[in-house]
This record gives sequence, structure tokens and C-alpha cells, in this order.
Amino acid sequence: MAISGELLIGGTRVRKAETFSAFNPATGQALSPAFSAAGQTEVEQACELAWAAFHVYRELDPELRAKFLETAADQIMALGDELLERAHAESGLPLARLTGERARTCNQLRLFAAELRYGGWMGLRIDPALPDRKPLPRSDLRMRKIPLGPVVVFGASNFPLAFSVAGGDTAAALAAGCPVIVKGHSAHPGTSELVASAVTAAVQACNLPAGVFSLLNGNSRALGAALVAHRHVKAVGFTGSRAGGLALMKIASERPEPIPVYAEMSSINPVVLLPDALDTRAEALGTEFVGSLTMGAGQFCTNPGLVLAVEGPALDRFVASASTALQGSVPQVMLTAGIHSAYAKGVEQLEQHASVTVLARGEDKPGINRGRGALFSIAAEEALKHEDVMAEVFGASSLLVRCADDAQLARVLDHLEGQLTATLLLTDKDIAMAQRLLPTLERKAGRVIVNGWPTGVEVCHAMVHGGPYPSTADGRSTSVGTLAIERFLRPVCYQDFPDALLPAALQANAPKRPRRIDGVYTID
Amino acid sequence: MAISGELLIGGTRVRKAETFSAFNPATGQALSPAFSAAGQTEVEQACELAWAAFHVYRELDPELRAKFLETAADQIMALGDELLERAHAESGLPLARLTGERARTCNQLRLFAAELRYGGWMGLRIDPALPDRKPLPRSDLRMRKIPLGPVVVFGASNFPLAFSVAGGDTAAALAAGCPVIVKGHSAHPGTSELVASAVTAAVQACNLPAGVFSLLNGNSRALGAALVAHRHVKAVGFTGSRAGGLALMKIASERPEPIPVYAEMSSINPVVLLPDALDTRAEALGTEFVGSLTMGAGQFCTNPGLVLAVEGPALDRFVASASTALQGSVPQVMLTAGIHSAYAKGVEQLEQHASVTVLARGEDKPGINRGRGALFSIAAEEALKHEDVMAEVFGASSLLVRCADDAQLARVLDHLEGQLTATLLLTDKDIAMAQRLLPTLERKAGRVIVNGWPTGVEVCHAMVHGGPYPSTADGRSTSVGTLAIERFLRPVCYQDFPDALLPAALQANAPKRPRRIDGVYTID
Repeated sequence: MAISGELLIGGTRVRKAETFSAFNPATGQALSPAFSAAGQTEVEQACELAWAAFHVYRELDPELRAKFLETAADQIMALGDELLERAHAESGLPLARLTGERARTCNQLRLFAAELRYGGWMGLRIDPALPDRKPLPRSDLRMRKIPLGPVVVFGASNFPLAFSVAGGDTAAALAAGCPVIVKGHSAHPGTSELVASAVTAAVQACNLPAGVFSLLNGNSRALGAALVAHRHVKAVGFTGSRAGGLALMKIASERPEPIPVYAEMSSINPVVLLPDALDTRAEALGTEFVGSLTMGAGQFCTNPGLVLAVEGPALDRFVASASTALQGSVPQVMLTAGIHSAYAKGVEQLEQHASVTVLARGEDKPGINRGRGALFSIAAEEALKHEDVMAEVFGASSLLVRCADDAQLARVLDHLEGQLTATLLLTDKDIAMAQRLLPTLERKAGRVIVNGWPTGVEVCHAMVHGGPYPSTADGRSTSVGTLAIERFLRPVCYQDFPDALLPAALQANAPKRPRRIDGVYTID
Repeated sequence: MAISGELLIGGTRVRKAETFSAFNPATGQALSPAFSAAGQTEVEQACELAWAAFHVYRELDPELRAKFLETAADQIMALGDELLERAHAESGLPLARLTGERARTCNQLRLFAAELRYGGWMGLRIDPALPDRKPLPRSDLRMRKIPLGPVVVFGASNFPLAFSVAGGDTAAALAAGCPVIVKGHSAHPGTSELVASAVTAAVQACNLPAGVFSLLNGNSRALGAALVAHRHVKAVGFTGSRAGGLALMKIASERPEPIPVYAEMSSINPVVLLPDALDTRAEALGTEFVGSLTMGAGQFCTNPGLVLAVEGPALDRFVASASTALQGSVPQVMLTAGIHSAYAKGVEQLEQHASVTVLARGEDKPGINRGRGALFSIAAEEALKHEDVMAEVFGASSLLVRCADDAQLARVLDHLEGQLTATLLLTDKDIAMAQRLLPTLERKAGRVIVNGWPTGVEVCHAMVHGGPYPSTADGRSTSVGTLAIERFLRPVCYQDFPDALLPAALQANAPKRPRRIDGVYTID
């Protein structure tokens, strides 16, 4: 299908005089067509439509919402290679990676469809009446969770499919019963339009109210700010920079009615190399580490930006292996010119830092927006004095913190900010030390990994992709996995309702879903 | 036991030069002894102790935390009549009410003990490894919820037991594994000290780290502000005024690390009298309503401060009945002189409002700090023009909104702010109208009640005592019932952990708790 450059507001294509362009980061060339930039009028339209749709959509039979999500997945697949090629042109990401990301995006929609049918998300609780209880009878009390209202989702630059128009937050919000307005990322508006057309086709095929979904493209901060400030918007999902996330949190907290912002902001994902693991496989760890570090030009929220280990010959072997691997790594096209220049600046600051040593750089090949990998080291004592070196440099840059002993390593960990992940490389002999470190790692991170690498986030039930501030705005939540639906729900209690007035899910003849009766889980 | 006036910081009694007094609101007399006022030094001590205790307390076997909560309940009961008499002297609340409140407080602790043993609160999820999956194997992923860290709980004036030192938030936080620092309400410091001594005795009897619990008394705003700002504090529970709650939310959001504030702030708890219910039992509804309105001098967060109905003879009968009942109601001692004067001022503002009619006042008897009930009415059209009349007047004041028809009634409901509760009085013939109103009521309130009155909050599994802003700071949560434990927890995912390194609850030989395996609930 042809990319028109139009906005998609509740199923209607809207063209604006004000436009902006996408660029191919591999060439620096502008890509056609020009894209309409949404303004306050479109914000108002999309929010009003979403508000009107909310009242219908939120009470749909979960089966219908499940079919809608599956139809959206089918429609995304039906876009075929055009979607992958456009995403490749707009992001510089390889087609193979984008093929995998598309599969993940569709699996994510299907997993939420399954969760909708299963019903665990409803959080049903029933405390039946106790009319004869003394001194007072107990009322019949029933709880379910209901959606918050329209949700604004900000597309992320680094996952043009899986964290963008039909990505994790969109899937979770639509599953919860919340209409979604996507503020498309300005780097991949064509990809956004294609996916939005697929979601819109699903809305129409399922006869849903048009306002269930809108895409507003634009490249101004004012657009995002207006969406977050709109009275009909009840929650926000965001993945991006810390400055961007903090700005949205501030807007949301200063509204007449504050709303939750689920912002995923920055993380350096500490990796701890434990002594026996280093002793027994320093070389392999060095190679594997560089694989994780340079994957996708390092443009993952879970990129391993910090490595901690105790000094010694084994660590030297790791450094030698990692340095060799990195020196052989080909620079990759980064997502945008802005991201590339921020990366180059971040690397340069570390290079020039008096306490930081450059261990290795990736190959230096010609071409614009190429991110050369970078590995640095610092003595733990210096790192504790200059905590700013342990901040995210978005891209394939990592800092090795050389510790004098276990205690110093633990001290550095204790000084870290909140993280999405923490990783332990260990053998059986390292378990005792890992046990000592785990309480700190748990406190700092949403996911702790053993003998793997942090890049790669499984979409499943037990996943937590979240973590204490500032890795996210709200460490009580996850943006990946079925638990993500809870961020868009709140509980309501129904007291002494006649059966006919109860929500369908709480009526006597409701389909049997997992529920707690007098506190006890009951599954039929 | 003698009330010493001292602070209780991690089991140590601390006396300060700066003191303040409690007053008997029935007499205006100061009560002995003088109470030490905590300052920055004590904030630092309590927070440091709480932080140190957190690391041990959070990983205790849940059975030990359950025993601790039960021991605290036993110790509170062991305080005997002294507790009730002191609470009566400090709050003016009748002994019968305080006896019931004590039972509720202890039941609450015991209910959380039961939840700890049952394990539903842990949110366990296990997605076993799929080593043969194509194109990529799946890791073993396991989730549990862990506590946030030390919690500050502000004692509430209107529940010196159930929402104070060992009240709902304290019970939920201690159950979750969070040490608690209580900022005692300055109106009942003696009650606070007694309950704190009971909790401290339980800490000692159970050999817990001393910092698990502290009580800081004081009558300055700076004390509360310093606690909320402290780096070791990770969440806040508050029940009180909107101004107070908003001030704490601001402090919490401006910290280097923002933290959640669960503030319960204000609610007028709309009650809708449906036509057939009015027709068939207007007189009874009038009497019941006044019973709920004047209970406890109206000093409940769930007090029915707003009544909506369609004009007509049946509504006139309700008004006549309610007016008669209210005129016969004896004024009751309010909690503090400040609360009494704010109530008197709020009532006076309504009395003088050009669009508001006084329907009835309670009896006018001599005595200080007595709250005379007040019932007002306003035409719906006027209410929509002057929305400020639909604001909380804390005490036994309520406003009847006379609506021309169903549509106008629905419009008024749609204009309301977020509420803790909404109530429908109905018969079978009113169900269709109730069905039309329910979507709005659900959207506005945390609990919807049929044919009851909002005062009276059951402590159970299905209860929601919470609601959209500004009734609370965060409508995704409840402060009463077992679901309240979730406000102090966050999920963590463990990827490919060897069994020995896993938290006990996720190990292969863990006690069988409710859990989702591959998304499916499993209960042994």
C-alpha cells in the first residue's frame, strides 16, 4: 500500500499543511513522502474520539477484544515486506532483526488475546454475604479491574515495531480496554503509518468504535506535551530519554487530575563477572559480552553498559578477549543522526575523562551515522568518586569497573541507580558470592539474569521489563509481558449488587475465570 | 502502663526538650503528659534503623511476619481499657465505637497474617525453560513480588486506631516486608504511644530487627515533610486533607528518587435515590440517610456528603423525613478544635451561598467542639454552575441536588470529581436506570454500593477503599483489604537461576503457593 504521509485519526486520514520528513540514517537522504504534523486540533479530535470510544470499548466482551488484537496481528503480517523495507529504510536496522521484531510484535498481540480469554487480568474477587455474622452481617462484595481510560503511547526510536505503534504498551492498553492514541516517533513515520493502517483495518473489521485507535505523527515536543495534558487522557506509556521522560512526568503530575506516566528512561544494566566464571571461561565471556554489547548498534534499553569484576589475571584475559572482539566489530548504522551524535559525544566524554582508560574501539569504517563500539575501564575507587561515568551512553559503549575485592564490588553496586536488569556470570563455586550480591541486585533491578546477557526480552507471563527509578518512572510496573496489562487497570468493588446489575464477569452465570472466593483462588 | 510522652524509635524511648500537648476535645483541656516532638535527628535515626532492618525483615519467612502481626494484635488487646479510654479522651469518640475500631484494627492485622500464609500476595509466576523452542530457546523465567522499602505512615485523626499507628497502611506495609515509621497524628499522641508500645513489644517478642517499627510524634509540618523527603523512605501512606495530601505528593515527586504517595484526601460519596426506591420508602431512606450522615459526627471519608434525586412528591417525603431525623440529632464532639472550626466554616459558607437552601440543622446544644448536622439543597442547574458547593465539608454536612429529570441527574454525576464511593438506592423497577448510571459511577468511584450506605468499610479480600483522584492520589490502589499489600510491592523476574540461588518462594521445593505456570493458575 502507498504511504500517504497522512495522520490516522479514528480511522480518518487527515492531511496537514505543516509537514516533516523522515531520513534514511544510512545515507542521510530524506525519504518521501512528506508527513503531516499533528497540531492542537488533531490532539483534540483524537482525544474526543478516544473518550467517546472508551465507554463502549471498555465493556466489550473480552473475546471481542481478543479477536481485535489477533486481527491487528494478521493485518500487520499482511503488510508483508513493504513494512520491513520501510522500517529498514527509516531505522537502519537490518531486515533480519526487523523480521524478528515483527514476529515479537504479533506474538505480543496474540499473547494478550490469550490473557483476555483466560481472564487472570480481571483480578476477580468475591467475598459472599454473611447475613448471620455477629456483631454485624457482611455484605456481598465483589471486585473486578476496569480500564483507566484513553492512553497515549509514545513510539520508541529503537523498536520501530515492538515498542511503537502496535508495540507493548499499545497491546497492553488495548487489551485492558483503553483506547490508544499513538504519538508516532518522528524518525519512522512511514513505518508508523503502515502499522497504524493495519490496526485501523482491524478496528473496522471488528466493528469497533473508530476512536479506539489514532496515530498522530509530528516532530515537535508540543505535540507530546498537549497529549499528556489532555483531560481525556488517563495514562501514558513512553520509552526514550531520561530528559524526555522527566518532562512528561512533570506535565502529568501538574495536571488538574494527575495521571500515571510509565516512562522507561535509562539503564546501564550492570553485568557482574564472578571469580570462578572468569577463571574458567574469561575468553568466551569476553566474546559473548561484545556480541551483546554491539547487537543492534547497542541501541537497546538492556544494553550491558557496565561490567564489574575483581582485578586479576582472569579479568585481564576477559579484557583481552573482549578488546579483540570489539576491534573486529563493524560499525553499524545508528537509528538517527541525533542518536549518533549523542553517542559520539558520550563516548568522547569518557575518552577524555582523566580516570577512564580506553580499552578498545570498534573498527573505523567510512559512512555516516555509524556507531563505533567503545569499551572503557575505570578503577572502582575512581568510579565511586565520579559516579557520572556510570550513566547511560545510548549505543555500543560499556565501562568496565575494576574492583580490588568483593567488598568494593558490592559497594559499587550499592551506589548504582535503579536498573532494568542486572546480570551475574557465575559457576557453582560462585554461588555463595552471588547470594551475597543478590539482595542488592534485586533492590536495584527489575530482572536479574544468570549466565545470559541482558539484551533479549522474552514476551511471556513472568517477564519484568521495568525497574526502580530512574530506569523507569514507576518500578511497580512492567512494560513487557502479560503483567503489563495491570498498568492500565484499577480495581472497583461492587457491594450488594443484584445479579442483573453486576458487570457480566461478576454475575452468577459468568464464564468461569480464575477468581478468589473468600480469598481462596478458585479455578474451574 | 504509664504514658511517658516519649518517642519510640526502633524500640528505644527518646525524650525531647521540645514538647506539645494533646487536648480533650469535649472539654478543651490539655491532657498530660507533654509529648516529645521529633526533629530532624529523630527522622534520621528512625530512617537509618528502618533501612538497616529492611534488609533482614524483607526476606523473613512469611510465617514469621504473620506471627509478628498476630502478636501485635494480641499486644494491642492486652492494653485493655486504658487504650480505649485514652483514645476516647483524645478524640471524643464514644467507647463503643472505639471498641469496634479496635476489633477492626486487630482483625486487619490477622487478615494480613492469613494472606501472608496463603501466599497470593507474592504474585508468583513461572515460565519454565523451553530449550528446544525454535527459532530461539526460552529461558527459565520466574517472578515474585518484593517490598519497596521503608514506608512512612501518617496517622489519621478520624481513626485513632484503624487508620493510625497499627492501622491499615501499617498492617499492609509490615505484611509486605516494609519497615514502618509512623508519623503519629498530633491529636492523639497518647493513643499512638500505647499502640506503638504494643507493636514494639511484638517486634521484641518475635526477635525482629529493632528498626522494623518507629513512632515519631510531633505537631509540625516539617516533621512529615522531612520523613517523606528522606532517601531511605520508599513509599508513603496518608489519610487526611486534600491540602495535606497534595503537599506530600509534591515533596515526593520532587525528590531525586520520586516515590509513591498513597494519599486519601477527600470524597463526598454521592448517594443516588432512584425513583421507585423513593416512591416506596422515602421515609425510611430519610431516616437511614441521617443515621449514616451523623454517625461519628460525620467524620468518615465515606460520609454521604451529596444526595442526588429527581424532583417530585416522593423526594419531598424523603426531605421531610431526613429533616425531622436531623433536627432530632444531638450534636457530637468533633475530633479536634481545628476540625470543628473548619466544619463550622464550611457549613456557614453553604448557609450563605445564594443558590443553596438550608433544609435542616441538628439540635443546638451547648458545649465546645460540637458538630451540628446540616442538610442543604440546591437545584441541579445551580449545582452545575457552582461546582464548588460539591466539595467535602468534613463532618455531618450533606447537600441534596434536586434534578429535573434522569438526564440532568446523569449530567451532575458526570461532573463530579473522583470519589471513594457511590451509592444507589433502588428497587427492581429502578434497575434499568441504575444500569445507565453505573458506567459513570464506576468511572468516578472505587466502590459502588446498592441499598446500603457508604459509611462502614468491610476489611476483606474484595474491598476497594480508594478511588480516582482527588479522592486518592492513586486510584489504582486500595488502603483497606488484602489487595492493599500490593501498594508496597514490586515485581522482580529471575532468569535462568540455579535453584540454590533462587529466592526460597521460587525454588523447586518451595511450599506450594498459588502461582501461574505458563500463565495458568496452579493451586495445590
